Amino acid sequence: MERVVPRVLKGFRDYLPEMMGRRSQMLTTASGVFERFGFAPLATPALEYTDILLGKYGDEGDKLLYRFEDNGGRDVSLRYDLTVPLARVVAQHTQLPRPFKRYQIAPVWRAEKPGKGRFREFVQCDVDIVGTDSTLADFECIQVGVDLLKSLGVEDFELRINDRRILDGLLALLNVRDRTEQLTALRAVDKLPKIGWDGVRAELNQTTNLNADQLDTLSAFLTADLHDVDESMVDMDVAGDGIAHMSQLMDWADDLGIGGYVKTDLSIARGLDYYTSTIYETFLTKMPDLGSVMSGGRYDDLLTMFSKNTVPAVGISMGVDRLLVGLTELGLTSDADVGPQIYITVFSEETISPSQRFAAKLRNAGFRVQVHLQPGQKLGRQFKAADRCGASFVVVAGPEECAKGEVTVKDLSKREQVTVGEEEAVGWIEQRV
Amino acid sequence: MERVVPRVLKGFRDYLPEMMGRRSQMLTTASGVFERFGFAPLATPALEYTDILLGKYGDEGDKLLYRFEDNGGRDVSLRYDLTVPLARVVAQHTQLPRPFKRYQIAPVWRAEKPGKGRFREFVQCDVDIVGTDSTLADFECIQVGVDLLKSLGVEDFELRINDRRILDGLLALLNVRDRTEQLTALRAVDKLPKIGWDGVRAELNQTTNLNADQLDTLSAFLTADLHDVDESMVDMDVAGDGIAHMSQLMDWADDLGIGGYVKTDLSIARGLDYYTSTIYETFLTKMPDLGSVMSGGRYDDLLTMFSKNTVPAVGISMGVDRLLVGLTELGLTSDADVGPQIYITVFSEETISPSQRFAAKLRNAGFRVQVHLQPGQKLGRQFKAADRCGASFVVVAGPEECAKGEVTVKDLSKREQVTVGEEEAVGWIEQRV
Repeated sequence: MERVVPRVLKGFRDYLPEMMGRRSQMLTTASGVFERFGFAPLATPALEYTDILLGKYGDEGDKLLYRFEDNGGRDVSLRYDLTVPLARVVAQHTQLPRPFKRYQIAPVWRAEKPGKGRFREFVQCDVDIVGTDSTLADFECIQVGVDLLKSLGVEDFELRINDRRILDGLLALLNVRDRTEQLTALRAVDKLPKIGWDGVRAELNQTTNLNADQLDTLSAFLTADLHDVDESMVDMDVAGDGIAHMSQLMDWADDLGIGGYVKTDLSIARGLDYYTSTIYETFLTKMPDLGSVMSGGRYDDLLTMFSKNTVPAVGISMGVDRLLVGLTELGLTSDADVGPQIYITVFSEETISPSQRFAAKLRNAGFRVQVHLQPGQKLGRQFKAADRCGASFVVVAGPEECAKGEVTVKDLSKREQVTVGEEEAVGWIEQRV
Repeated sequence: MERVVPRVLKGFRDYLPEMMGRRSQMLTTASGVFERFGFAPLATPALEYTDILLGKYGDEGDKLLYRFEDNGGRDVSLRYDLTVPLARVVAQHTQLPRPFKRYQIAPVWRAEKPGKGRFREFVQCDVDIVGTDSTLADFECIQVGVDLLKSLGVEDFELRINDRRILDGLLALLNVRDRTEQLTALRAVDKLPKIGWDGVRAELNQTTNLNADQLDTLSAFLTADLHDVDESMVDMDVAGDGIAHMSQLMDWADDLGIGGYVKTDLSIARGLDYYTSTIYETFLTKMPDLGSVMSGGRYDDLLTMFSKNTVPAVGISMGVDRLLVGLTELGLTSDADVGPQIYITVFSEETISPSQRFAAKLRNAGFRVQVHLQPGQKLGRQFKAADRCGASFVVVAGPEECAKGEVTVKDLSKREQVTVGEEEAVGWIEQRV
């Protein structure tokens, strides 16, 4: 037989139990927060018709699609994010309520060059509010983001907000009026945290017609405080709306006592073409190099690809894997409660059924229970197996104990043991967990 | 702008919130059962190198792979099941404990002709025990299956077991000794519940050399009781082992009080090539046409594709979508608890922040709370929105109430209301939920 080398594709990963347990805990916390804010769960297919996805992420994004022809000759692609599929769902299932508030936790695929913390398959965790242009919806996304990080035990973070309209106003002020050139400039600015201002300036020099003076103006602006923004911009319709909008969000955040977590940051651009006003990025203060762990914004035009009616929408997305790296380094993940708590040894062939029955009793009481699968193996080896899987209690019951309906339970951490009736043994364990 | 028609690929589905909620409840129950039996969670990539997957499902299976060349020219496929990826994981991550007990809940993809209850993307939910040939492991899969269905509220079901070795013995007895012909025959027998004996007989007539006498023998055997199996077979080494093995499993099931749910059925074949002894199928007694909702078996040779060491393994897999159809028709799913319990109206722009603060208070108390996103909209419309999303309580707080730190809470089902201080209001709701 020809042997195959067991391996995964570059940029893909297995999640072994320990890591998986931590991720599950994080996602359970997340869905709890989302549901307390009235978001409902949604799932969409991994594969979509390519025309649904194509053109929504810009040229760079299109190149990153896993795109192929299926057995029926259809042009299909693996989803690149959860936002465009949401837009499709809302356009297709017209019976859904408006505003439609949903969360979705699911993997997405991008044929990117893999690197540190950058994978070709990764889980996204999104909340979106579709069907209202209310600023309260933008604010709710901020609330959800802050609540989520606090629920995960993170206190040192900044949810930074900006408004695309302010950047658009600035670009208009600099006479960059061509949409393609605007987006090129925004994508360069978006790299600021990664490559610094010198890098951004070099890229803008190469890809736009901005001269040195204009680049100086841009640089000064991007590091300015919201209140110091040039009066001439506040007077501009679009930029002025953006500034008022951001001030409103900051006021509400202060009123709700979460203002300390929220900061305006005029340099935040977000690479994706589809954002129209508010944009979010979130950074862990103690890990500035990690990049944004939660991003999003308002995208009021995305549904126009399906319908002549515009449907306003806003959302925020947690980078599950990146945030998990952050939580782990900050010591904020606990050892996952996935292994068995109680290990049942099996003394001999004769004691199999009594041991199984006692295991069932413990499971009914809610415990995670593992039964040794090699009956009659030396008890020393069975205890070692119990130890390896992290059990806190070991149960031993030989033929004599079984005959009397008794078991011996050892508390491995306290090094104590009792030999008592089965009911009493369950109680003894319950008291010590 | 060219518009795209919003649609999903044939054989793919959206899970809208109501369905999603029911599925989540089912899967939460499932992972709880698995963890109480000491299984740990695992996740693997959706895409694998094609050579990892190819040839493990037989020719028919290979044709159903979603297979393509990625941007880097690699031959890749979407996973067809969770079993072969598990085999890869065990071969690749040699540090994993043995026996390795894992569960995985994840979608798989098959380019099958879609039909009633047959989809191209569906979620599998598997438990497997890798690294022991102990019959207790086979029994544990039965226990998990029975416990899972009972935990989901199903009482009328049969987990039917058979042993491939008995079928192999029978085929040897009938002088079908070529492996390919044996598998052809098994795949025909596997269709028994779907196409009946006449259909199977016709297929066997066409695809094998079995004559009328042999087909009669086969038919008599497939409907026989385990205890009535021909003595000549019990004496055959392989078949005899299978019969003893099945008897052992039935004895343990009786000892544990779950014998009523477990039946031997010599006609169960399972199409997949990789099973080597025990096989399982599970049917809901009240819905015989639904097909098997939980299947699996022992596959002791699967890991030999990666390594010269054989690693015995056994597992059982729940068909999530099919079982969900069954539970729904049997009335065993409850309305999912995903919508908001409490709806907070927003009287005017001035009451936004007090309303938000009270909402935050209720969320901290664990409630699912939705805030109306159009402040100042007529209260009637806000109440209608509350009704549409299924909330049980509506909170109203005008400027006067806000000034006094009070709110009005209406219990929609009991048609009662109070106007009290915020703390008292939380308590009032808590008592009524």
